[in-house]
Amino acid sequence: MTHPHWDLLLTDARLATLRAGAGEYGIVEDAALAIRDGRIDWLGPAAELPPKTAAVTEPQNGRWLTPGLIDCHTHLVFAGDRSAEFERRLSGASYEAIAAAGGGIMSTVRETRAASPNDLVRQSAPRLAALVAEGVTTVEIKSGYGLDTDAERRMLQAAGSVAAQAGVAVSRTFLGAHTVPGDWPGSADDYLAAVRDEMLAAIHDAGLLDSVDAYCESIAFSASQIETLFRRADDLGLPVRLHADQLSDGGGAALAARFRALSADHLEYASASGIEAMATSGTVAVLLPGAFLTLRETRRPPVDQLRANGVPMAVATDCNPGTSPLCSIRAAMHLAASTFRLTPAECLAGVTREAARALGLLDDRGTLEPGKRADLLAWDIEHPAELSYWLGLHRPQCRWIEGVRKD
Amino acid sequence: MTHPHWDLLLTDARLATLRAGAGEYGIVEDAALAIRDGRIDWLGPAAELPPKTAAVTEPQNGRWLTPGLIDCHTHLVFAGDRSAEFERRLSGASYEAIAAAGGGIMSTVRETRAASPNDLVRQSAPRLAALVAEGVTTVEIKSGYGLDTDAERRMLQAAGSVAAQAGVAVSRTFLGAHTVPGDWPGSADDYLAAVRDEMLAAIHDAGLLDSVDAYCESIAFSASQIETLFRRADDLGLPVRLHADQLSDGGGAALAARFRALSADHLEYASASGIEAMATSGTVAVLLPGAFLTLRETRRPPVDQLRANGVPMAVATDCNPGTSPLCSIRAAMHLAASTFRLTPAECLAGVTREAARALGLLDDRGTLEPGKRADLLAWDIEHPAELSYWLGLHRPQCRWIEGVRKD
Repeated sequence: MTHPHWDLLLTDARLATLRAGAGEYGIVEDAALAIRDGRIDWLGPAAELPPKTAAVTEPQNGRWLTPGLIDCHTHLVFAGDRSAEFERRLSGASYEAIAAAGGGIMSTVRETRAASPNDLVRQSAPRLAALVAEGVTTVEIKSGYGLDTDAERRMLQAAGSVAAQAGVAVSRTFLGAHTVPGDWPGSADDYLAAVRDEMLAAIHDAGLLDSVDAYCESIAFSASQIETLFRRADDLGLPVRLHADQLSDGGGAALAARFRALSADHLEYASASGIEAMATSGTVAVLLPGAFLTLRETRRPPVDQLRANGVPMAVATDCNPGTSPLCSIRAAMHLAASTFRLTPAECLAGVTREAARALGLLDDRGTLEPGKRADLLAWDIEHPAELSYWLGLHRPQCRWIEGVRKD
Repeated sequence: MTHPHWDLLLTDARLATLRAGAGEYGIVEDAALAIRDGRIDWLGPAAELPPKTAAVTEPQNGRWLTPGLIDCHTHLVFAGDRSAEFERRLSGASYEAIAAAGGGIMSTVRETRAASPNDLVRQSAPRLAALVAEGVTTVEIKSGYGLDTDAERRMLQAAGSVAAQAGVAVSRTFLGAHTVPGDWPGSADDYLAAVRDEMLAAIHDAGLLDSVDAYCESIAFSASQIETLFRRADDLGLPVRLHADQLSDGGGAALAARFRALSADHLEYASASGIEAMATSGTVAVLLPGAFLTLRETRRPPVDQLRANGVPMAVATDCNPGTSPLCSIRAAMHLAASTFRLTPAECLAGVTREAARALGLLDDRGTLEPGKRADLLAWDIEHPAELSYWLGLHRPQCRWIEGVRKD
C-alpha cells in the first residue's frame, strides 16, 4: 500500500483565501483544500481536485475556511491588575492623581519586574487563551514593561512560553523604548542610549526578538532619539516598527518609512507626506481601535488617505492594561468597522494578510495559498462579512495549526 | 437520617451581592451562600454561617459570586442576515440606496414573516447561546419584526422556545409599534390603531407578553400616537416600556414617566424635565452603547443628569441586525464604561439589579439576597471591576440557574 499523498483533505468548503488580487475576500465556492506536511498543498474548486489520495478527508458541509487570525500588535505579557485604576478614572480621578497614587504604566512596570517567570506566564496565559479561542494562530507580543535588561528579557521569554503553551506562533518585539522608567536616574537621552547600547544587544544575543519597536510621541521619545535606536537595529539586521503619531504628529510615519519599518502603528495624526512615504516604503499601517475607544480619541486615523495611497492596513487589539484592555481580535475587527469605517473585507484582510505582512511573514502565512502554513479556521457562517459585523457572535468551529486539528 | 437543610452550600467565596445600599458592589468577603429549593436561603460572612446541613458543599477557592446577568433589551429573535448591508454601508452606500435595494428593517421583516417557527428558533438560538455563555440567566426579547398578528405571535413563541432550549428565563415584550411596515396600505395612525385594537389583544390573549414597547421617534411614532397604545396597555394591566429620545427629543422620557413605564431606553436626547419625571415615576433608564457605536452617534445619554436625579441606569445589548449587531452583554458593559463613562460598579449593577428592575423582576432576582432566585455566577477574577474593564476576557467559571449548576 502506498503512502497517501495528502495528510488531510477538506472538502465541501467555501474559501475566503484573502489572496491578493483575487477580489475582496478571494472567495472560492464549492472548494477543497489539501494539506501535506503542515502546508497547504492544493486548493481550488472541487471540480478541479487532482486525483490524489488523502490519509483523512473531512467534509466541511459548506462551512467557510479562512486563514488563521493574526494579532500583530499586543502587549499581553505583564503582571498585575489595573482595573481599580480604570474604576478610579471613571469615578473622576485625573491621570495625575492616579500617577501620584502609584498608578499608570509604572505600576505595571513594578509588578512585571517583581513577578517570577512562572507568575508572568500564569498571569498572561488567560489573555492569550482568549485570543486563541477566537481563532488567533499567530500573535505578536512586545516587551516594554520591564525597562531594564533582565526584566525585558524575562518578558520576551514569557512571551515564548505562553505561546508555546497555547500552541500558537509568536513574533517577539523588543520595546525597551516604551517610556523612560520613573525611577531612571538620568535623562531620556541617557535611557535611550542604554536601550540602544546595552539592552538591545543583550536581548538580541539571547535570540529573543524578531523586531524592534519604539514609542514616538511627545510624552515618550522624539523621532531623532528613536532614529539612533533604529540605526543600531539596522546594523544588527533587525526589522523595526513604530508606535507613531497616535496623539500628535511627531513625524512618526515618515521616520518609520525612512527605516523601511514593517509597520507604523496607531497613526491618528499621521501627515499626508508621512503616508506617502509609507506607501513607498511598503510599511503597513496597523490600526488600533481599542486604544482609540479607551482614550476617547476623536481623531480617526486617516483611513481614506491610507487607502488612496495604497498603504496596506492591518488591525490589532493592542491588548494592554492601560489604554486598550481588549482581549478580542474580533472586537478589534468590529470596532475597526464601526469606528474607523473599514469595510468588513478590509477588517478580515487586516487580521490575516496585512497582519502577516506587518510581521514580515506574508510569504509564510496570512492567506490560503499553496505552500503556506496550514493555519486555518472553519466557521459556521453565511458570509465572511459576518466576522466583522457581529460583536460577540461566532467562534471558529475548528482550528488547524500547521495542519493539525486543535479542537 | 434527616434531610439536609440546604440543597447547596457555596463556601470560601467573595460576594458581589449588588444589594442596594450596601456600597458599590455590595461586597461580602470570606463569604458563604446557601441555596434551598432554587432560592438563596442564606448568605454572609463564613464566620456567621448557621450550623445547618447541606446536601452538597462546594468550596469556591476565593472566586467571586455575582447575580446572573440580565440582558433587559434585545431584539434577538429574527430571521435573515444583514451583514451584506453592513458591508455595503461601509463601502459607501447611503441608507436610501440600501432601502431602495430592499435592505433595512423591512428586509428583516420579510425574512422573519417567511421563516417557519423552527427556522426562527434555529436562527436565533446562536445569538442567545452567545449571551448565555457570558453569564446571562434572564433575557428580554422583543417582537417587532413581524408587524402583523401572526408573525408577531410567532416571534414571541420563538422567544419562549429559544429561552427554554437555552435553559434561561425570558421576559417577552410586544413591539408591534416598532415601525409602520413598508407594505402597510394605510396611514401610520391606521397601523397604530391595528396594533392597539387587534394585535395587542391577540398577543395578550395568547399569554405571550410581559410588557408593551413602542418606538417613539420622528422616524417612527409620535408621543401622542403611542399614548393611545399605552392607555390600552394600562387598561389590560400591562406594564409599558419605550424606545425614547434616541435620535431627537420627542418627549419620550416624559411619556414613559407619565405611564409609569418600567423603562425608557436609549435617551441620548432626553430633556431635563423628562429625566426629572422619570425619577419621580421610578422609570429605569436603559442605556444601549451598541446602537450608539453602530450609528456613530456623537451625543451621549445624559448620564450625569440621570445620576444627579437618582434615575436607575441599566445597560443592555440591544442585540439587533440593523443598529446593534452585539451579542455580548460584557461588550455592552465595557462600552458603557468607555463611551458613556459609567463606572464599572454602575455597569455591573446595570446588568443585574437595575436590569431586573427594568423588567419588573427586582423582587425576584437581580441581587444576591435571601429569598431571591439562585441565579448566580462564579468568576475567576481579582475584583468585579474587571468585568467591565476587560473586553473579551473572563467568562463565568460556573453558572447556577435556580440553584442548579449548568456547567
